[in-house]
Amino acid sequence: MTQSSTTHHYQKLTQHFQKISHFEHLSALGDWDQATMMPSGGSEARGAAMAELAGHIHELKTADFLEEILGLAADEQLNTEQVANLREMQYQYFQANIVPVSLVQSKTQLAYQCEHAWRVQRKNNDWQGFKPNLEALITLVKEEAQIRAQAQGLSPYDALLNKFEPGMTTARLETVFGSLKSWLPGLITQVQAEQSSEKPFSIPSFSTANQEALGRDVMGFLGFDFNQGRLDISSHPFCGGVPGDIRLTTRYDEADFTQGLMGIVHETGHARYEQGLPKQWRGQPVGGHRSMAIHESQSLFCEMQLGRGNGFLTQIQPLIAEHLGSVLNADALTNIYTRVKPGLIRVDADEVTYPCHVLLRFEAEKGLIDGSLQVANLPEFWAENMKSLLGVDTTGDYQNGCMQDIHWAVGELGYFPSYTLGAMYAAQFRYAIEKSLGSVDTLVAQGKIHAVFDWLEHNIWSKGCLLSTDDLVKQATGETLNPEYFKRHLEQRYLK
Amino acid sequence: MTQSSTTHHYQKLTQHFQKISHFEHLSALGDWDQATMMPSGGSEARGAAMAELAGHIHELKTADFLEEILGLAADEQLNTEQVANLREMQYQYFQANIVPVSLVQSKTQLAYQCEHAWRVQRKNNDWQGFKPNLEALITLVKEEAQIRAQAQGLSPYDALLNKFEPGMTTARLETVFGSLKSWLPGLITQVQAEQSSEKPFSIPSFSTANQEALGRDVMGFLGFDFNQGRLDISSHPFCGGVPGDIRLTTRYDEADFTQGLMGIVHETGHARYEQGLPKQWRGQPVGGHRSMAIHESQSLFCEMQLGRGNGFLTQIQPLIAEHLGSVLNADALTNIYTRVKPGLIRVDADEVTYPCHVLLRFEAEKGLIDGSLQVANLPEFWAENMKSLLGVDTTGDYQNGCMQDIHWAVGELGYFPSYTLGAMYAAQFRYAIEKSLGSVDTLVAQGKIHAVFDWLEHNIWSKGCLLSTDDLVKQATGETLNPEYFKRHLEQRYLK
Repeated sequence: MTQSSTTHHYQKLTQHFQKISHFEHLSALGDWDQATMMPSGGSEARGAAMAELAGHIHELKTADFLEEILGLAADEQLNTEQVANLREMQYQYFQANIVPVSLVQSKTQLAYQCEHAWRVQRKNNDWQGFKPNLEALITLVKEEAQIRAQAQGLSPYDALLNKFEPGMTTARLETVFGSLKSWLPGLITQVQAEQSSEKPFSIPSFSTANQEALGRDVMGFLGFDFNQGRLDISSHPFCGGVPGDIRLTTRYDEADFTQGLMGIVHETGHARYEQGLPKQWRGQPVGGHRSMAIHESQSLFCEMQLGRGNGFLTQIQPLIAEHLGSVLNADALTNIYTRVKPGLIRVDADEVTYPCHVLLRFEAEKGLIDGSLQVANLPEFWAENMKSLLGVDTTGDYQNGCMQDIHWAVGELGYFPSYTLGAMYAAQFRYAIEKSLGSVDTLVAQGKIHAVFDWLEHNIWSKGCLLSTDDLVKQATGETLNPEYFKRHLEQRYLK
Repeated sequence: MTQSSTTHHYQKLTQHFQKISHFEHLSALGDWDQATMMPSGGSEARGAAMAELAGHIHELKTADFLEEILGLAADEQLNTEQVANLREMQYQYFQANIVPVSLVQSKTQLAYQCEHAWRVQRKNNDWQGFKPNLEALITLVKEEAQIRAQAQGLSPYDALLNKFEPGMTTARLETVFGSLKSWLPGLITQVQAEQSSEKPFSIPSFSTANQEALGRDVMGFLGFDFNQGRLDISSHPFCGGVPGDIRLTTRYDEADFTQGLMGIVHETGHARYEQGLPKQWRGQPVGGHRSMAIHESQSLFCEMQLGRGNGFLTQIQPLIAEHLGSVLNADALTNIYTRVKPGLIRVDADEVTYPCHVLLRFEAEKGLIDGSLQVANLPEFWAENMKSLLGVDTTGDYQNGCMQDIHWAVGELGYFPSYTLGAMYAAQFRYAIEKSLGSVDTLVAQGKIHAVFDWLEHNIWSKGCLLSTDDLVKQATGETLNPEYFKRHLEQRYLK
């Protein structure tokens, strides 16, 4: 018997998942176009076409023959990588099949309505309007969590976490985040005291065109290949497209170029991960990104570990001077990009205060799912925790409080922890790189940034989903998630 | 029995064709993106995704249940418009099913290879390289024509014409084009003699950005709604997208803005037709464009009947002055846009000589399909006919002779006549408009261009495929295709 005939069920599966990836390619294109190019008049037809496509992809992922053939393939003579691919296929099949179609549809519909209303309600600080919508949506999310939990033998919130972080548990997060909560608020106070003597900077205005030209050059410095992707504008920055054709976006504020520029650095991190995924596995489940936390670890590695470091800022200062004029030296840039200031908005938060926003949301989500927190009590919970974690007052400010994020308005619970897990992994990867290659800041200052990316490509990007998250991190750094590196990183960078 | 239950087979068909239109939406988006936005590294994955999508659309159009249900729906109590929709469904089903999948696949594959090689061979004037590829492809086209002919009781070339012009026949074209051939070469000689005393113009250079800004303003003047479409750049101008989101493109030559600008006017004609198709029939076969000749009639109405007229050029002269400076007055513009000069290249031809390029191709295609012309003799045929029709010599110049068009290199025969039929319909529509509203040039000069478009919207665009081409034209103008109006138009504009 030849190898191909002994694996023919597995081969049939690879063809089927390749087909799915072709339709997902079209879905990624439609999403990108909608956010960057589509005129308003196109939304009705696009909405219908995208819904049709989503339905078709769901049909393919839940095709009747899959269950049997996934079982048969498991008995075939597969090599290690094929076994990993089959495991990811089983995971995708499970995720697509676990929730009844009727629940998926009601949740999609309610989430659409809730989000639509939220866009106006948030602007109007209209908590009373948002509350009943969120309550109805959370009821469905709890139902979904219950179904997922039973099927996997997990707690309901664990089941939601597993949509984004396969293998992650509430218990583990409680340990990791509990430690964070014990030292971070104190660190923030300390850093603020140290920075209080620094004088504020005034940042001149620059045209969008100049900022975009600068952004492209910085992307080039970060090794982005423009033959395999684009940079465009959208109201919410994202990294989309497909490996080989990564579409990233940012937005420009003429009055403050620093946020848009760092947004580009962040999305370039996502982009390089996607571009660096294993080419030989493109279109197969095992060829995708490992988890959302690992994805965020790559964007945050670029933005936080590299981007806000003095080595990087010294290197890109001449590019800034070329496009915007010599208005800020590397020290001024470093000061701007390491300024710590507790605020109301998660997406505007600095590296040090950001995890507090995640801690609060993690606790809130756990409570909403286990029933210990009611939607009606969310503003109160929010105000208390923002006060204790960050010392800021959000009483009565719903739009900049519990209504600020889109996640809950679309019924997406369990995602927030990925941001801070990503920041922690990024710090851990940096430590591992420095152990073998020496200081990252020094490498960058010496023009050897490629050595840092080579390490990431070899240890993270090229692995796709071949390993579990724990195995991936252990193979790359010698241990599984260890939040100590994140603490060490913040102390080294922010305490003088 | 309610109306809905007496038409439930028909209703099922409308749902199925709506679904097809959703996937065709994605196909249009993929095509547009590929030509305008996609980086080179994206082509492999995109090619695979688009092939998957094409296969899926073909599956939907040839679904097993369609034949029976199309028959059952025909016995239901349908109103006139539903009957027309069913007729178009039957037509699409027939077109998708008539050619065996194996032949479609071999032709697609061979066409892909032939085109790929042609792109290089054309540049190198390599007729000997192109010839065997074209011979192989023509063999398959003849096979396709034979199958289509037998199924429809038509001649093979008629069957190819019917892919683009339902109802058109070789015999009718021979009458129409035969008449054209009898007077057009004489007219060209006469016009050239009259224009020989006019002095040539020198056109200054303008930046792409200024030309694009001008183009947008001219599109606005032509009533293009930018909430329902976009203008971008591609190497070959086209009008794509979907109604509600029309994507048109042009290319800019900094040394000569006149071609790019008229290209925009041309594509805007296509775009307004698509934007004006009946909204209540979007996604249904009867809601689409009537035929390629009618599509070309709308672009050529904009470009030739309106765009090269003194009324239009007088109106847009201030826009040109605003964006490019006051370098050309309306008379100079009129002279530039009505200059007649026989040349080698169809797509560069003026309004008067263009039909000669089509006459030649029509004769060649007939011969290639009925076997009276061999591929090997094409260059000789080309040289003789270019000499007799336009007085130019193409001997040995294959790249600007029979290798200039992409159509044959991808195995598409039967399309060329649509261009000249479109020019004729455009002249006939103008005559009908003038009978009821007075001179089009005067209307445009008086700022009443909308009255012209209102007529087109009412009589052509909003009809979709509700009527046959002959009925559409008869209802709009009182008679079916009458090439006399085209003759009259050329004589009025070009003979002093």
